[in-house]
Amino acid sequence: MKIAIAQLNFHIGNFDGNVEKMLTAIANAKEEKADLICFSELATCGYPPRDFLEFDDFIKEGMAAIDCLAKAAKGIAVVVGAPSKNPVVEGKDLYNSAYFLANGTIQQVQHKALLPTYDVFDEYRYFEPASEFNIVEFKGKRIALTVCEDIWNIGNENPLYTICPLDELMPQKPDFVLNLSASPFSYTHAEERIRILKANVKRYGLPMFYVNHSGAQTELLFDGGSLVIAPNGEIYDELPYFEEAIRYYELEDVNAGKQQFTQPKDKMTLIHDALVMGIRDYFGKLGFRKAIFGLSGGIDSAVTAVLAARALGEDNVRCILMPSQFSSGHSVNDARQLAENLGIQYDIMPIQSMYEAYMDTLKPHFWGKDFNVTEENLQARIRGMLLMAMSNKFGNILLNTSNKSEMAVGYGTLYGDMCGGLSVIGDVYKTEVFELARYMNKDGEVIPENTITKPPSAELRPDQKDSDSLPDYDILDKVLFEYIENQQGPKEIIQMGFDEKLVRRILRLVNINEFKRHQTAPVLRVSRKAFGMGRRMPIVGKYLS
Amino acid sequence: MKIAIAQLNFHIGNFDGNVEKMLTAIANAKEEKADLICFSELATCGYPPRDFLEFDDFIKEGMAAIDCLAKAAKGIAVVVGAPSKNPVVEGKDLYNSAYFLANGTIQQVQHKALLPTYDVFDEYRYFEPASEFNIVEFKGKRIALTVCEDIWNIGNENPLYTICPLDELMPQKPDFVLNLSASPFSYTHAEERIRILKANVKRYGLPMFYVNHSGAQTELLFDGGSLVIAPNGEIYDELPYFEEAIRYYELEDVNAGKQQFTQPKDKMTLIHDALVMGIRDYFGKLGFRKAIFGLSGGIDSAVTAVLAARALGEDNVRCILMPSQFSSGHSVNDARQLAENLGIQYDIMPIQSMYEAYMDTLKPHFWGKDFNVTEENLQARIRGMLLMAMSNKFGNILLNTSNKSEMAVGYGTLYGDMCGGLSVIGDVYKTEVFELARYMNKDGEVIPENTITKPPSAELRPDQKDSDSLPDYDILDKVLFEYIENQQGPKEIIQMGFDEKLVRRILRLVNINEFKRHQTAPVLRVSRKAFGMGRRMPIVGKYLS
Repeated sequence: MKIAIAQLNFHIGNFDGNVEKMLTAIANAKEEKADLICFSELATCGYPPRDFLEFDDFIKEGMAAIDCLAKAAKGIAVVVGAPSKNPVVEGKDLYNSAYFLANGTIQQVQHKALLPTYDVFDEYRYFEPASEFNIVEFKGKRIALTVCEDIWNIGNENPLYTICPLDELMPQKPDFVLNLSASPFSYTHAEERIRILKANVKRYGLPMFYVNHSGAQTELLFDGGSLVIAPNGEIYDELPYFEEAIRYYELEDVNAGKQQFTQPKDKMTLIHDALVMGIRDYFGKLGFRKAIFGLSGGIDSAVTAVLAARALGEDNVRCILMPSQFSSGHSVNDARQLAENLGIQYDIMPIQSMYEAYMDTLKPHFWGKDFNVTEENLQARIRGMLLMAMSNKFGNILLNTSNKSEMAVGYGTLYGDMCGGLSVIGDVYKTEVFELARYMNKDGEVIPENTITKPPSAELRPDQKDSDSLPDYDILDKVLFEYIENQQGPKEIIQMGFDEKLVRRILRLVNINEFKRHQTAPVLRVSRKAFGMGRRMPIVGKYLS
Repeated sequence: MKIAIAQLNFHIGNFDGNVEKMLTAIANAKEEKADLICFSELATCGYPPRDFLEFDDFIKEGMAAIDCLAKAAKGIAVVVGAPSKNPVVEGKDLYNSAYFLANGTIQQVQHKALLPTYDVFDEYRYFEPASEFNIVEFKGKRIALTVCEDIWNIGNENPLYTICPLDELMPQKPDFVLNLSASPFSYTHAEERIRILKANVKRYGLPMFYVNHSGAQTELLFDGGSLVIAPNGEIYDELPYFEEAIRYYELEDVNAGKQQFTQPKDKMTLIHDALVMGIRDYFGKLGFRKAIFGLSGGIDSAVTAVLAARALGEDNVRCILMPSQFSSGHSVNDARQLAENLGIQYDIMPIQSMYEAYMDTLKPHFWGKDFNVTEENLQARIRGMLLMAMSNKFGNILLNTSNKSEMAVGYGTLYGDMCGGLSVIGDVYKTEVFELARYMNKDGEVIPENTITKPPSAELRPDQKDSDSLPDYDILDKVLFEYIENQQGPKEIIQMGFDEKLVRRILRLVNINEFKRHQTAPVLRVSRKAFGMGRRMPIVGKYLS
C-alpha cells in the first residue's frame, strides 16, 4: 500500500482555497499511484477556527468542502480532518473528526476523543469527545484513525485524560496508525512529539504516519515536521519544518524500517525559521506584502528587520529612523548600517518638532510638574504615530519590535513602541534576542557588531540605560522563565537562590502590566508559554501585586 | 433555621481582603443569631481567577483562606466557594468547590459538576467535574449544596450536559437547596435566572437560596440579584442589583411563602447601573480614583461622561476638548455645556499645531498622495496622545468612548479614539447609546439636546457624517445583532429581509476588523455576546471577508 502524507498550509475559513490545494495534492497522489492520501486536522476550515465554529453557515461550508473532496476520492482514499455535527442533542454540537473518503463518498468518520483545553487550546468549548472507536478497512489493511491529541495519552500515562484511544482500537487489530494533527510549534515541541510517537510505537508495535499542519495562523506557528515511524520504533522519515511537503511511502518499506531522515533541531535555527514563516503567513493570509517599522539602532528592531527582510524580501520592507534629542550618535549610524547591510529602504524623521508642538500645548497643564515617564512616553508615541501614518498611507503593516522581557515587565509604551499589527519577537526573551542576533551573523555581519555589544537603552532621557530601571537581563530572564513558562510561585523561585526582594518586584511588575499586554498585537509563539491566547490573566486582580 | 445570604463584592487574588470581608459578615451573622451564612462561588479567590489557578502558590493561598474561615465557623455554619485540589492523578488538578465549614473545621466539600465552557467561561480549562453528590446534614436539616451552573440543567433539559446534580441529590431527601453562584450580568440574564430557579423549584418542590456575586471583575459585571424562592415556586426575595447586601431568612418563613420582593428590570436602568458599577470597580480594584477622556460634543463621549461622573464623583472626572479645523462650532459648545451640566473639570487643547508638525515631517514622504484616512487617523491619534499624556502625568485612567456598532465595523482609529484602559460603552450599540442618553435625561437635561439630535459625525474631514461611510444605525445595529448576539450567518440574515449587498458588506467589515478589536481595552459586558473574552475570533482568516 502506498501512502501519501500531505503536510500543507491551510487558511482559516478559506474553504475554496483549502479544497483547491487538496484537490491538487490528490491529483498528484493519483499520478504517483498512491492508494491513500492523508491531510491534517481540520484541514477543510483551517486550525484553529475558534468561534467561527459556532456559526452554522461555517459548518455547512465545511460539509460542502467534504462533499467536494469525496467526489475526488476515486481511485484513491482521502483522509481529511473537518468538523462534523453531533447528531445527538446531548453534549456539544460538533465533533473534531477524521473523514475517510473513498469510492466517491464518505466511507467512515472517526471523531477525536482527547480534546485539549489548556494553554492555547479551547477544544472542549466546541467539541464533544468521541465515545466510539472503529478501525477503517481499506484494500485489505486495517487502519487506526486518530486525531492529534488522541495519541498523547499512552495507556493513561497522561494525567489529563481517562481514555486512551489506541487502547480502544487495538482489539480490532489495526495494521498501522494514521494521525491527523495541527500541533503548534514551540522550540521544544519537535522532540516531545518524537518521544510520544516512539512511545506509541513501542507500546503498540505498529507503524505510524503522523501528518501535521505547516504554516502560521496569526500567533500560532505550525511547523509541519510530519513523521513516519517504523514498527521497530525508529524514525523512518521526518518531513521538513516550516514548509509544505508531500511524501510517499510504501507501507511494506516502512514496516521493514530502513530510511532514517530527520531534521536539525538547533534552538536558534528553529526560532529563526518559525518567526520568518510567522511573518510571511501573517502578511500572505491577510493579503499584504509590505512591512514597516522603526529602526532604533538597538538589537530588538535590528533582529526584527532581519526576520522581516528574510520573510518578505528586502524590497517589501521599509524602516524609519526617528532620532530625538536623546538619541546617541551611534543609534542612527547603527540603524543606517543595518538598513544598508540588508538593502532595505530607510527614511529619517527627527521627532523634535512634534515633541515641541505637544509640549507647547501641554506645558500650561503640566505647570509645576517635573519631566517624568510622561515625556518619555510622548517620544515613543510620536514614533508610533509616524509609523502608523506611513502604514496607513502606503498600506504597509507595522511590525512591533518588543521582546518578551520588556513585554513581561511593562517596559514599553502603550500606543508607542507597543504599536503594530504583529509582535515578531514578543515571545523571545532579551537574552535570546542576543543569541538570535549572533545566529544571524554567523555567516558574516548582518547586524552591526555595535548594536549587539552596546548596553541596551530606550534613549528617552539623557544617558538612560535599561539597567537603570531593570535588573540584569541574565537574572530577569531566568526569573521570568520560572514564573511564566514553569508557573512557579514566589516561594519556589526564591528557594532557587534568587533574591527575595528582586523576585517579588519582578512578579509584581509582570502582574500589574497585564493591562498593557491586553492591548498588544498578537505575538508569534515560539515557547511553551507565550503572552496571548495561551496565557489568560485577570487585569483587575491583586495577587503578587 | 435562620439562613444568611451574603452577596458581596470580592476581588480576584486579594485573599486577605476577601477573607476580612467574609469575617465581618460572619460576625454580623452571629449577632443576628443566624445558623448558617452562605457566600458566593470561588469567594476566597474571586471569580474568575483565570490562569492564576495554574499556580500552586495561588491554590495554597486559597486553602489558607479556607482554614482561616473555618476557625471563624463556630456557633455558625459557613458555606463558601473555593478551588480545591483533586487528590486523584487522573483528570484536571482542581475542583470548583463549595465548602461547608462548622465547629471550627471543614465538615464537607461538594464539587461543581457542570462546568461552563462557552462564551466568557473556561471552567473545563481548570476544573474536573464532580462525580459524587452528598447531602450536608446540619442541625436536623438536610442541605443540597450546588455551585452555579449545577442548577442550570433541570432533568437534562439543557443539551450541553448529561448530568443533573439535583436529580442525583434528591434520593437523599434534602430539605432545601443552597446555590453558590458567580453568574455574570447581561441585560436579559436576571429574567433567565428567575425562570431557571422557578423551574427547579417546580421540579423538586424545595425552597432555594441562590447567592450571587455582586461587583465587577474587569469586563465581567456581576449583578448580585440573589434569590430566595419559596417551595410554591414564587419569589420570596430578590436582593438588590449591583450592590452588596446581607439578608436573613427563617427557613420556616420561606417554606410558608409570604414576602415577595423583586427588583425592577427595565433594560436601560440595568445597563446604566451595570456600567456605573463596572467603572467604579475597575478603578477601585486597581487603586485609581480619577478618570480622563476626550469630550467631542458627540453622544458617545457624553454618555461616557455621565456614567463616569456617577461612578467616580464629578470631582474625579476630567475631560479634554480637542477641536480641529474640521470641528463644527456646536461641538465645543455642546461639550462645554455637558461638562458644566455635570460640574466636571474641562480643558481645551486645539490639535492644529501638532497636526501641522506631523504634516511638515510627513509631507515629503507623502508627495503626490491625496488626503485620505491617514490624515483622519492622524487627528484621532493626536487626541489619543494628548489624553495619554494627561493620564500619565496626573495618574488618571483614560476611558475609551467607542460604542459597539463602530467597534464592530472598525469605524475607529487604533491608537486614536480606540485608546483607553477601559471601554465603557463598547457593548452598547449606537441605537442603544441614544436610548441611554434619553434615559439619563429623563429627570431633566444632563446631556444637551443638540448632542442627541444632531447627525453623528467623526468630524475628521469637512462636512463628514457617519452616514457617508456607514449604513443607517437602525439597520446596521439590527444586522450586527443577528450576526454577533444571535450568530446567524449571511444567508439567514438576508432571509430576514435585509439587503444582500449590505449584509455581506457589514459582515465583511466585522470580520476584517478583528485585528483592531484584538488591541482594544476590556469592554464592560452588558449583552449576551460582547467583544472580548467571550468572542474568540481568528485574525488571519478568510471567512465572509
